[in-house]
Amino acid sequence: MVAHLDRSARQTIPAPDASGEQAAYRLPGYTDRGYTFESLPLQRGGQLGLVTIACETWGTLNAARDNAILITHALTGNAHAHDVEHPDDPKAAWWNLLIGPGRPLDTTHYFVICSNVLGGCYGSTGPSSIDPQSGQPYGMRFPVVTIRDMVRAQRLLIDALGVRRLALVAGGSIGGQQALEWAVAYPELVEKVAVVAATAALTAQAVAFSEVERQAIMNDPLWQNGDYAPGAGPSAGLSIARMLAMITYQSEEAMEMRFNRQPSRQTPAHSPTHTADLGGRFDVENYLYYQGNALARRFDANSYLYISRAMDLYDVSEGYPSLEVALRRIRGKALFVGIRSDFLFPAARVRWLAEQVQAQGGDAAYAELDSPHGHDAFLKEWDQMAAALQLIM
Amino acid sequence: MVAHLDRSARQTIPAPDASGEQAAYRLPGYTDRGYTFESLPLQRGGQLGLVTIACETWGTLNAARDNAILITHALTGNAHAHDVEHPDDPKAAWWNLLIGPGRPLDTTHYFVICSNVLGGCYGSTGPSSIDPQSGQPYGMRFPVVTIRDMVRAQRLLIDALGVRRLALVAGGSIGGQQALEWAVAYPELVEKVAVVAATAALTAQAVAFSEVERQAIMNDPLWQNGDYAPGAGPSAGLSIARMLAMITYQSEEAMEMRFNRQPSRQTPAHSPTHTADLGGRFDVENYLYYQGNALARRFDANSYLYISRAMDLYDVSEGYPSLEVALRRIRGKALFVGIRSDFLFPAARVRWLAEQVQAQGGDAAYAELDSPHGHDAFLKEWDQMAAALQLIM
Repeated sequence: MVAHLDRSARQTIPAPDASGEQAAYRLPGYTDRGYTFESLPLQRGGQLGLVTIACETWGTLNAARDNAILITHALTGNAHAHDVEHPDDPKAAWWNLLIGPGRPLDTTHYFVICSNVLGGCYGSTGPSSIDPQSGQPYGMRFPVVTIRDMVRAQRLLIDALGVRRLALVAGGSIGGQQALEWAVAYPELVEKVAVVAATAALTAQAVAFSEVERQAIMNDPLWQNGDYAPGAGPSAGLSIARMLAMITYQSEEAMEMRFNRQPSRQTPAHSPTHTADLGGRFDVENYLYYQGNALARRFDANSYLYISRAMDLYDVSEGYPSLEVALRRIRGKALFVGIRSDFLFPAARVRWLAEQVQAQGGDAAYAELDSPHGHDAFLKEWDQMAAALQLIM
Repeated sequence: MVAHLDRSARQTIPAPDASGEQAAYRLPGYTDRGYTFESLPLQRGGQLGLVTIACETWGTLNAARDNAILITHALTGNAHAHDVEHPDDPKAAWWNLLIGPGRPLDTTHYFVICSNVLGGCYGSTGPSSIDPQSGQPYGMRFPVVTIRDMVRAQRLLIDALGVRRLALVAGGSIGGQQALEWAVAYPELVEKVAVVAATAALTAQAVAFSEVERQAIMNDPLWQNGDYAPGAGPSAGLSIARMLAMITYQSEEAMEMRFNRQPSRQTPAHSPTHTADLGGRFDVENYLYYQGNALARRFDANSYLYISRAMDLYDVSEGYPSLEVALRRIRGKALFVGIRSDFLFPAARVRWLAEQVQAQGGDAAYAELDSPHGHDAFLKEWDQMAAALQLIM
């Protein structure tokens, strides 16, 4: 694999900042260009090209080029993990409160990178990108991409950024799968890894939820086999998928605390189908409508199909003689973080994975977030997340 | 409320059978007529008429007319709880192995009744019935019906059958909600009650799953606001709803045992949307497609909307000053059965309900099925179900 790097991109790598001032900067072309390389061979066969991987960075790469941290986002996330203009607003960026001066991912010491995932719709090449062969959007002609492919693309990105070694790879959910894959696929490049709310492979139940979500998208008459015009996609189907996903990201306990059986008290959102309520509306329903609509406005339905499928297909042991052999490859310190109330990536399975790494002689630790917030806790429990990350920082 | 009973129906009530032979008989008009009465006032307002409630019975009503058992079916069930021609086949009828001579619901001693629920599509009046006012199917013009309405309709049915007192009301899931409602609404008529895998009211999470299922149905282009022709309904949407429901009826543990991450090994079923697999097919997906398709062939989508909504809306305390006041009305022996792995009606909540009844001075017992099969265990764990029912028989 050879990365043909844009000359313009190479020029963006900053010199060490002697002043210590850590002004945020973005690599040029973040939103609509990012790093572009000619071709990416794919795990399930074939190759993809041209490929662009969009990213954001914070902090400065040091002279040894070994102080980089790569963080990997969740299913519908993007590269905007931190917002330097609103560093204390948890809604301004998805891991905002964990990144910045004096925070666990300290930008005075580290060069923090977050890229939009391959298959995504926030600047990286995905199903909504133009297929150079046809001049049309890929749609469902986009090839199946895997976690391994996503990580390969990130590898090309960090090469292009001049990074020699990653001080840490960290991510949650499908981002945690990517972090794990990094540690196994490129052990020589990964000094430490934090795998948050992710396991060696999804459970049958999680795959099942995921497939219901995809079927709901594809049953929307606007899906049109994936060939919808921009802005005219299957918003109701995507909204229904998101409603279901939001249930799996939370927990019975959290929903009971927040919604219970209260009738809707918020500004009424329209349901995905714009149908009338049947005997009233519960608060939890209105909340899910709102969340569904919000995702449908900001996310590409085909990207949802491909990225969620990559999550299902991931098994860290694929291509190795056994799980043990795969996990034995991990060289650096590994932190696994489970969440007590997570039923999508159950804590017991995260802990089990940590134990398997230890059993192979790996330097693995396990921490558990004591949170009612389910899978989403890694995007909510800032203090506990910070404490967990400090275990390996 | 006055039940205007068909003359023909009154004639079907059998005399006590001196020979001891317990041949099954069906009330005339079971499939397409059942018991018809002129009008049913509804909890949420308005009234419904004419109303037919289809039923099946087994065994013989005694001279005192107090040996009747009413059993109440689950969401997509019907009145065929027992099959006298195939009494040992668990698939021939939904509680087949619990009913019959020598079984917990012993037809040599009891007159066992099961009716199709109000709103259903197996002979009882529901959204697919012809609205006498318009001569067209009700569709979404069918009024909102509640568990209380369903039980009121059953009350008229048992009156029509000549039953003076119910020796037992028993059911699981939404059938368990009905059993609970019977004991609270008509305590003088209920000697014993068995509430299986049901609680005082659904959790927010369960309501949320239920609403995702309904939205999936209503987003199917064939739904047509409920005005689809018979056999031309939203089968893909209903199939997606069923896929999701099947996940909630099982458990992570059971799905892991049965499917794990095995690729599909069974005869390929088509997915609801007939779309191509994306990177292969897991066994759990094929299973869910099969289950979805099977329901879509046999069940009315609008009935699904109305009955699932009745389940969401049910709160046993509605209309009473408090839950305590409602539960204090229960006079007979009450058995509550939870299932260890049930996440739709969590065992802890079933147990809590039993404790609340005890706290109000009620004669309540709690039993828990130690099963990995989730909510569905009450339709699978015959030995444990029989043992539980023996606690009050």
